Amino acid sequence: MLNRADLHGSLSEPLLDTMNFLNEVAGRYPEAISFAPGRPYDEFFSTEQVFDHLRRYLKHLEDEGRSAGQIRSAIYQYGPTAGQIRELIAEALRIDEGIEVPAESIVVTVGAQEAMLLVVRALTSGPDDVLLVSSPCYVGVCGAARLLDVEVVPVIERADGLAPADVEEAVRIQLARGRRPRALYVIPDHSNPAGTTMTLAARRELLAVAARTGLTVLEDSPYRLVSPGAQLPTLKALDTGRVVVHLGSFAKTVFPGARVGFAVADQEVADATGRVGLLADELTKIKSMVTVNTSSLSQAVVAGALLSAGGGVTALNAGPAAHYGASMCLVLDHLDRRLPAARRDELGVTWNRPSGGFFLSVRVPFVADNAALIRSAEQFGVLWTPMSYFYPGPGGERAIRLSTSYLTEAEIAEGVARLADFIDVEAESRVRSTRLSDRRQ
Amino acid sequence: MLNRADLHGSLSEPLLDTMNFLNEVAGRYPEAISFAPGRPYDEFFSTEQVFDHLRRYLKHLEDEGRSAGQIRSAIYQYGPTAGQIRELIAEALRIDEGIEVPAESIVVTVGAQEAMLLVVRALTSGPDDVLLVSSPCYVGVCGAARLLDVEVVPVIERADGLAPADVEEAVRIQLARGRRPRALYVIPDHSNPAGTTMTLAARRELLAVAARTGLTVLEDSPYRLVSPGAQLPTLKALDTGRVVVHLGSFAKTVFPGARVGFAVADQEVADATGRVGLLADELTKIKSMVTVNTSSLSQAVVAGALLSAGGGVTALNAGPAAHYGASMCLVLDHLDRRLPAARRDELGVTWNRPSGGFFLSVRVPFVADNAALIRSAEQFGVLWTPMSYFYPGPGGERAIRLSTSYLTEAEIAEGVARLADFIDVEAESRVRSTRLSDRRQ
Repeated sequence: MLNRADLHGSLSEPLLDTMNFLNEVAGRYPEAISFAPGRPYDEFFSTEQVFDHLRRYLKHLEDEGRSAGQIRSAIYQYGPTAGQIRELIAEALRIDEGIEVPAESIVVTVGAQEAMLLVVRALTSGPDDVLLVSSPCYVGVCGAARLLDVEVVPVIERADGLAPADVEEAVRIQLARGRRPRALYVIPDHSNPAGTTMTLAARRELLAVAARTGLTVLEDSPYRLVSPGAQLPTLKALDTGRVVVHLGSFAKTVFPGARVGFAVADQEVADATGRVGLLADELTKIKSMVTVNTSSLSQAVVAGALLSAGGGVTALNAGPAAHYGASMCLVLDHLDRRLPAARRDELGVTWNRPSGGFFLSVRVPFVADNAALIRSAEQFGVLWTPMSYFYPGPGGERAIRLSTSYLTEAEIAEGVARLADFIDVEAESRVRSTRLSDRRQ
Repeated sequence: MLNRADLHGSLSEPLLDTMNFLNEVAGRYPEAISFAPGRPYDEFFSTEQVFDHLRRYLKHLEDEGRSAGQIRSAIYQYGPTAGQIRELIAEALRIDEGIEVPAESIVVTVGAQEAMLLVVRALTSGPDDVLLVSSPCYVGVCGAARLLDVEVVPVIERADGLAPADVEEAVRIQLARGRRPRALYVIPDHSNPAGTTMTLAARRELLAVAARTGLTVLEDSPYRLVSPGAQLPTLKALDTGRVVVHLGSFAKTVFPGARVGFAVADQEVADATGRVGLLADELTKIKSMVTVNTSSLSQAVVAGALLSAGGGVTALNAGPAAHYGASMCLVLDHLDRRLPAARRDELGVTWNRPSGGFFLSVRVPFVADNAALIRSAEQFGVLWTPMSYFYPGPGGERAIRLSTSYLTEAEIAEGVARLADFIDVEAESRVRSTRLSDRRQ
């Protein structure tokens, strides 16, 4: 028998246990309405699309002049490690985001998760190298860092997202500790978990901070193209100094099961002989030791989906983006109705109003921990995620994350009603006990 | 601009440069016949099969009683991290290999490469933990270890593969150095690169050594089911003490582009509270930080392929296995004809006679390095892989690896003729210069 204590430390991460706990709770209360999983909505997808997309990509290869044998090899064989649909992704970035990069700067990955692992691995080389992350933070990047024994340093997010001055201060503190802050991970738009969006001014300032401090910014962008209306420019679109590695995903825009993401890494890298290549080449080398290539089928289906909509994601996702926007509004409307301003002021409850994405944060006056989650599931039939799960250190004890992406209108209405009841009861008992202790004093 | 020296050490691996060199040489001499790439033969594959396999798997889900919505979700959504075709893989292992394991002990991975990374990561937790590898060794496992900063200790293979006594001795030496040998990587059948196969007695003895020393054996098995005739039992089939993690791949048996492999990890793991789980559960946690899931499409197509052949790989691969066996024989026949026994004795050239797999080793009396490879390409129009590439330390300087999997009969005949000429000329000049220096003495 093996001993957990002999296995890698990442396996003892409390985070893994909390995520398991969440799954267990969901399994124990199948009738509960869950605002926990950040899954996309299934209804825009039909299984038959897969066949159509695949056909379309094969046709595209044929139209490009490839022979039947070449097309067979493109599907059958080990493909190029950096990916076989890089040109199509470069074109989509141009159409959707105004990002102009050569295809050679793109590495196609098994979801954005693999891209995070590759970038964190490439940029860190010793025990002094640290990764800054906006906090609360997407758990995947912390997991990747933990797996590679890279220390994660949280930079606390404000109501309007990461503040560049906080980043600069964090760099200063880490340098003073003898650490090398190598990169900063951030979701500038509709962040997971908090639902914050950085202002245009903050974006420009963050790029200036990165340039001053030598930090590489890892910009994750999964929710932009499933959000309604015009978006602010990505950091990458503003990045004249090549300080940004842009991470992309087709998980929300095409489908999660395909597992296709990518990194845009157009940074130049000089070796000891002075030869200059791209960071993308280095990521490709690392990928050859992780997954070798990304599934040719998955790449083909994603490519077919892009081709079906003129090459961009925006047109492909007009319907879903409107839907997700409406779901977010619906959750906010029901919250407003169920916990009107006067009542929530009395209780000390607040939430933010994301303009897109899958998540919002609710601040509550009680500790929203696993015990609270069980009370919520058992007595009120509603699930959510404790925000504390997303803090690499302490924090988020009195906040919850709500996902708005996965539920139907009816589920949202009923779920918010249940949630409001839960919050009301928990907060009220808190208010009462505070009054009681005030009187006793 | 970034500096290579600031990036992770694995990126400075000489191996990566040598592999690039090989690709460059292949690009520079497109007319050369190449015995270098270990790719499967395309001709058994047709692109249309992908559609059929996918249909068949969808039908299978329907026959199992899943609703249209459930089938859609199975393809569309994030799937279970451990994989969605574990039952089918367990059944295939039973049919093909007589390996009886519960589906829960299987983790589906993005090729065997990801499985290697997961297992090496799970089993190592500090700077003293080392990985033993049979040497010469498949480069993928050394790459994964390097990426995780895990030290690799080579155990030199004999003509009939890894010798258990050598493994035990390596463990002893490492313990004396203050190291913890945690695992041993080996391809017992038709190894890559050397083409060796361990005897049944050696297999049993290796399991005894592992049990005595607490070593976990990572058994990689990519070439068994593409080899003709009956195979010896896998280590896993003989493994009554659960010391073997079996790594599997559908890259050669279904198709490489699908990127589907798996680990069988039925080892029990106890945590500090005494709760016991499976190593597979730990690998699944690590996978959640690497790729989240394996492509649902790729899993579906592999499952469909298995279902098309009664659930096992053996029936599916009867044709390819016979073909690969014939290709190996053809290479050996042509070598025998082009370098007959008397001549090769004179020159000091030998090779092994693998009963299956994709590779054989040729020992030559000259240094078979990159310079020799360029002479071979330029003057003789034939490519091969220097065996030294596959040694984690020194070794293999006077040996070459030949791949037999990818070429047609005509290419094999012509390629071996060119190769024999190259070897003859190189070895002859070596023999002559030795005679000359003998006369001078």
